Amino acid sequence: MASHLTKLEINCDMGEGFGRWKMGPDEELMQYIDTANIACGFHAGDRSLMLKTVRLAKKHGIKAGAHPGLPDLAGFGRRKMEIDPQDMYTMILYQVGALKAMLDAEDVPLNHVKPHGELFFYMMRDAEIRRAVLDACAHFHVPVYGCRNPEWKADCDKKGIFFQEEMYVDIDYDRQGRLLPVAKSQKATAELVYDRVKSGGLHDTTKDNEGNELVLGFQGNPFSICIHSDMPTALDNARAARKAVDAVKAERYV
Amino acid sequence: MASHLTKLEINCDMGEGFGRWKMGPDEELMQYIDTANIACGFHAGDRSLMLKTVRLAKKHGIKAGAHPGLPDLAGFGRRKMEIDPQDMYTMILYQVGALKAMLDAEDVPLNHVKPHGELFFYMMRDAEIRRAVLDACAHFHVPVYGCRNPEWKADCDKKGIFFQEEMYVDIDYDRQGRLLPVAKSQKATAELVYDRVKSGGLHDTTKDNEGNELVLGFQGNPFSICIHSDMPTALDNARAARKAVDAVKAERYV
Amino acid sequence: MASHLTKLEINCDMGEGFGRWKMGPDEELMQYIDTANIACGFHAGDRSLMLKTVRLAKKHGIKAGAHPGLPDLAGFGRRKMEIDPQDMYTMILYQVGALKAMLDAEDVPLNHVKPHGELFFYMMRDAEIRRAVLDACAHFHVPVYGCRNPEWKADCDKKGIFFQEEMYVDIDYDRQGRLLPVAKSQKATAELVYDRVKSGGLHDTTKDNEGNELVLGFQGNPFSICIHSDMPTALDNARAARKAVDAVKAERYV
Amino acid sequence: MASHLTKLEINCDMGEGFGRWKMGPDEELMQYIDTANIACGFHAGDRSLMLKTVRLAKKHGIKAGAHPGLPDLAGFGRRKMEIDPQDMYTMILYQVGALKAMLDAEDVPLNHVKPHGELFFYMMRDAEIRRAVLDACAHFHVPVYGCRNPEWKADCDKKGIFFQEEMYVDIDYDRQGRLLPVAKSQKATAELVYDRVKSGGLHDTTKDNEGNELVLGFQGNPFSICIHSDMPTALDNARAARKAVDAVKAERYV
Repeated sequence: MASHLTKLEINCDMGEGFGRWKMGPDEELMQYIDTANIACGFHAGDRSLMLKTVRLAKKHGIKAGAHPGLPDLAGFGRRKMEIDPQDMYTMILYQVGALKAMLDAEDVPLNHVKPHGELFFYMMRDAEIRRAVLDACAHFHVPVYGCRNPEWKADCDKKGIFFQEEMYVDIDYDRQGRLLPVAKSQKATAELVYDRVKSGGLHDTTKDNEGNELVLGFQGNPFSICIHSDMPTALDNARAARKAVDAVKAERYV
Repeated sequence: MASHLTKLEINCDMGEGFGRWKMGPDEELMQYIDTANIACGFHAGDRSLMLKTVRLAKKHGIKAGAHPGLPDLAGFGRRKMEIDPQDMYTMILYQVGALKAMLDAEDVPLNHVKPHGELFFYMMRDAEIRRAVLDACAHFHVPVYGCRNPEWKADCDKKGIFFQEEMYVDIDYDRQGRLLPVAKSQKATAELVYDRVKSGGLHDTTKDNEGNELVLGFQGNPFSICIHSDMPTALDNARAARKAVDAVKAERYV
Repeated sequence: MASHLTKLEINCDMGEGFGRWKMGPDEELMQYIDTANIACGFHAGDRSLMLKTVRLAKKHGIKAGAHPGLPDLAGFGRRKMEIDPQDMYTMILYQVGALKAMLDAEDVPLNHVKPHGELFFYMMRDAEIRRAVLDACAHFHVPVYGCRNPEWKADCDKKGIFFQEEMYVDIDYDRQGRLLPVAKSQKATAELVYDRVKSGGLHDTTKDNEGNELVLGFQGNPFSICIHSDMPTALDNARAARKAVDAVKAERYV
Repeated sequence: MASHLTKLEINCDMGEGFGRWKMGPDEELMQYIDTANIACGFHAGDRSLMLKTVRLAKKHGIKAGAHPGLPDLAGFGRRKMEIDPQDMYTMILYQVGALKAMLDAEDVPLNHVKPHGELFFYMMRDAEIRRAVLDACAHFHVPVYGCRNPEWKADCDKKGIFFQEEMYVDIDYDRQGRLLPVAKSQKATAELVYDRVKSGGLHDTTKDNEGNELVLGFQGNPFSICIHSDMPTALDNARAARKAVDAVKAERYV
């Protein structure tokens, strides 16, 4: 299980406000992260905020990826919606294409695509939808980010897409290694985040929500650590993750 | 006043339905035209219709351009809205970028950008808005279509954008050579359309709404003829325009 | 199974355009029908079209009801969406309240509520959603229209809402008496519509999609006949239904 | 210049979030105010937030009015848009009707209508639009709130609408007594707010942005004081206004 990364990195959702409404301390977070997942206007992120976020990422030397979602501002892309696979394919082209035009205008490369919220879960349970999304992603020739999705990875392999594995450190995994929603996870503290990043980075393990050891399976390859920007503790979490990533790098990637 | 065209052509707005709602006989019109202006989802055109229209254009060997508009589905992009120039710049990047991703996926080049409805008029009366739109267009390195807009052409020249002149044949010009809205124009008939195309193509003239001769000023350069797809007589008009264009070509471009 | 009607009637969905986009020959249909189900802006029907349709109904002496739907213009309210029951409750209050303000302004009483498209099916399969919708309807003190929904009727009874039974004559029933979508039904012709209305009105029966007799169960009570306004044959169907209803009335309600 | 109020009151915009996005500390503000202007879904305020805000107002014994705006979520109803007067009329019916259905469901009376943002300014400069809005308001038989709008008041008088005068204390008036936008006003402090309310309540005066005395012209009639809920200092301002209102009442309305 290779990686397109050469080192551990931290990715974070960005630009998830809309019009006058804010979400997350984007600018403050930039100093701690490596990669921004930029909302593309369907679940959040109007076009002016998209360009502002692209410029912010550029200014901080942070990689920029697309974070497409379902067309549902009122539900922040977190509600189940029935989408025809062909329509889904066009939605991804539309959103990623729109962001890419802004990246091109700023001479910033498109780094990856990471599906948002319910779109992510839709891809987990519906093979047709997953393939439609990945077919669209394939046109952009960049990695797709995801977490512990073997079928998803297999589909990526078939389509020539690099599937970049992620680790989550501010929400819990269950015994089977599946991610739990925020509401069912323990409260993320800076200590917890720090310990999880170190455990993942040095030993390829974390703990599930019952305290059992869970093997992550990165097998020594660098992976991407996701920090949620919309948690009240987001800044503390990001700072702790950064510190832990630096500690892991010092120990492992000399 | 050069042209990026080597011959006269006919352009037509396409893909201006939304969801279950239709607008114009797109598929039937394809046989008569050369170039499609494809709506990009803001004033009309959902993403599935966009891709369908791209594929239709490809199938008929027709050139495909972007037809961005104001964000106003309820008003079909024909109502005045105050837009911040910087926001306008991002709206154009967003719409054209979204369409370009679909064109890229279908291996169809982006041929041009043509602003829709009130966006067109906004650019005519507001220099800041015009420059914001053109700044965005410049990133795509394609011609911008427009009709008798000297300031617009001057701005294009400065930004290295090719400004492609158009002639309108199904609505009227006034004495000053300005386009009149459909409601203030005489009813377009196939005969009228035919005569106007021939007069424009052979003599560089047309008649204004009072019957006086109007010099178009193309000076022998090929131009693009716009046919409205949403008039009840659209198919007859397009057929007549095609016949006239072919007649002009036979006479002039041997 | 009583009726709030004293005679057979024909109901029809109306005002399902949006902005410049049209749907169905509303004005021509008015002469054949008794009751309009007016779209409320979520699946179709902008506010100006709503008022226009209210005035059209008033002019033709036709009863006006609300036709609320899911918030999905791009999908015409026909796609499955996950809605929180409390949010569903507010969506119905919002849509019916908006229409009622227009009816009040025109001195036209609100006659009923009829859920549209996927909202109808959502209520069929999800008891919580059904109750949320009916709780909202209960505030308006008008009948709710529906077709062969025993649980729905039972919930109406509990909440003091009158459940008005409908018969469908331009789509098919299956062997179990469930409605089939347009795509799975035989083509509705004027003859078929005429025969079905007469059979329902005089004998309380119709035929299922395999040709077997199906007892409707109206037991002599007047019911409401639904005609779809968006079928290509809508006008013919409505005319035939009107003729049949008049024939039934002449025979039965002397 | 009479008042529909018997005492000074404080009004505040409420429910101006959308989906997951928040705006203003609504619940904390409730303890200091008398009247809530509830957003109706066009410039802000989804339907679930509308009902939540209605219930919050009910719980705190606060009067509830409608705060309709232009259909512009991305611009928070603060951008100029060209609206046909007849369409404007239906927009007001739609929004106020939608809120009224929720108020009715909660047995809370509709207290008033107060136009939001650019809709307010549109009514100031365009008589046709003003009359369209007021024609719609007239159907609800409640006061319309506004600040120093003589033409507006005259139109209200003609239509039998009570025009309730307001005083603003967290933004500035200019020499001519016109309100200035937040950006051109001095920073609102609790002291400033307190002094202005007392000056208005006891002496019918305030100071303009140059420090000159400005006569408000309430002539001893109670008026409504508007506090903006979206300022960073909103809670302090509301607390200070409450304290001042209580002081004025103690002195004047014994």
